[in-house]
Amino acid sequence: RSGKMAKSTKLIDNEVFQAYATYTAIVLLKMMLMSLITAYFRITRKAFVNPEDTASFGKGDSAKKYLRTDPDVERVRRGHLNDLENIVPFVGIGLLYALSGPELSSALLHFRIFTGARILHTLAYLIPLPQPGRGLSWAVGYAVTFSMAYQVLKTVLFL
Amino acid sequence: RSGKMAKSTKLIDNEVFQAYATYTAIVLLKMMLMSLITAYFRITRKAFVNPEDTASFGKGDSAKKYLRTDPDVERVRRGHLNDLENIVPFVGIGLLYALSGPELSSALLHFRIFTGARILHTLAYLIPLPQPGRGLSWAVGYAVTFSMAYQVLKTVLFL
Amino acid sequence: RSGKMAKSTKLIDNEVFQAYATYTAIVLLKMMLMSLITAYFRITRKAFVNPEDTASFGKGDSAKKYLRTDPDVERVRRGHLNDLENIVPFVGIGLLYALSGPELSSALLHFRIFTGARILHTLAYLIPLPQPGRGLSWAVGYAVTFSMAYQVLKTVLFL
Repeated sequence: RSGKMAKSTKLIDNEVFQAYATYTAIVLLKMMLMSLITAYFRITRKAFVNPEDTASFGKGDSAKKYLRTDPDVERVRRGHLNDLENIVPFVGIGLLYALSGPELSSALLHFRIFTGARILHTLAYLIPLPQPGRGLSWAVGYAVTFSMAYQVLKTVLFL
Repeated sequence: RSGKMAKSTKLIDNEVFQAYATYTAIVLLKMMLMSLITAYFRITRKAFVNPEDTASFGKGDSAKKYLRTDPDVERVRRGHLNDLENIVPFVGIGLLYALSGPELSSALLHFRIFTGARILHTLAYLIPLPQPGRGLSWAVGYAVTFSMAYQVLKTVLFL
Repeated sequence: RSGKMAKSTKLIDNEVFQAYATYTAIVLLKMMLMSLITAYFRITRKAFVNPEDTASFGKGDSAKKYLRTDPDVERVRRGHLNDLENIVPFVGIGLLYALSGPELSSALLHFRIFTGARILHTLAYLIPLPQPGRGLSWAVGYAVTFSMAYQVLKTVLFL
């Protein structure tokens, strides 16, 4: 593929950018999956938050009792928020990192470890695994993003 | 505009990217609007969460009673969080999709439907409309983002 | 540095983009810091939300009492969510703005004011400072992002 790179100035023909695009799409799809899991638990646990969502269960008290929190729903929601808190920095800093001209092998290492760590984090949250399973998977993803931010600032610092 | 594209290698002169920039700015401004609506309801409903925010109502119990949750405030906040959960993947995956060389007509279709769906979602949440209004508008935006992610992975997959 | 710019079509060699990359990395790192502060308060206040996180305190009621909310933890979490709500639009709209060809001095002004405002917002939230300290720092960051969105839409509008 290096021949293609030499001829093209298009971002999308750059292998590091292709790797960034691939892993970013994967982690964002993984994050989007949390919405479906939340919906699944809301429906199976009959635990809703908006009155209009329980209208199909009848009127008055018969529907109102389904306006409640459920531990499984809340657990998925915490996992989803943790994804937002960690995947947003990865997507933003990862883009800058991919454009800063890293070695392909180094970029792949960062992207793969982050993606693996976030998938493990979700599993650790939802199963749930005993600690420090979730804590470690969170810390690995955090460290990868920090390492990319360091590379970006080292390359482009313009204050 | 095609003459401009042929001469320029700048992203911003690419029509697909211009469309991405336009719709991304619109949906992010729409998301930012949720902060103003939250502030409006907090002030009109006198429902705050930080003690320092109620200091102007006096000291002690006269101010403390305004540290409470309000259904309207919480509803806007849920809409805001739902925006974050759905607009973040659109912005990230949409950028990669715009760079992956889609047909302009296809890209416009994706961006327009997503933007329309998210505006409808906000209206459905805030009015509120009976279900499945909010659910459908959410699902349409979700499906558009998924379709763009599929195009990205089909074009650039580099694992 | 202008000689480099003239020879290169690479984004990363553009000074406006370098400034965007620098300030985006800084505000995203600042946002990531909120996770560490949350963890610090959870551990020092012994206030957790997942049962598996309190397993090291023993079994049954001796561990269960640490499943509680703490005002300091909740305060950091609100600051973190506010970061997500405001830094996500900055990162997305700022990228489009940086690519839309602004004057370097104008771009630096936007990026510096936003970054300063968000650091002040975090300090105002965590210390906490009396209002309108937090409110004003929020509004300044919001206005900067709105100004960049206006520039983007003025430059690229393609509906």
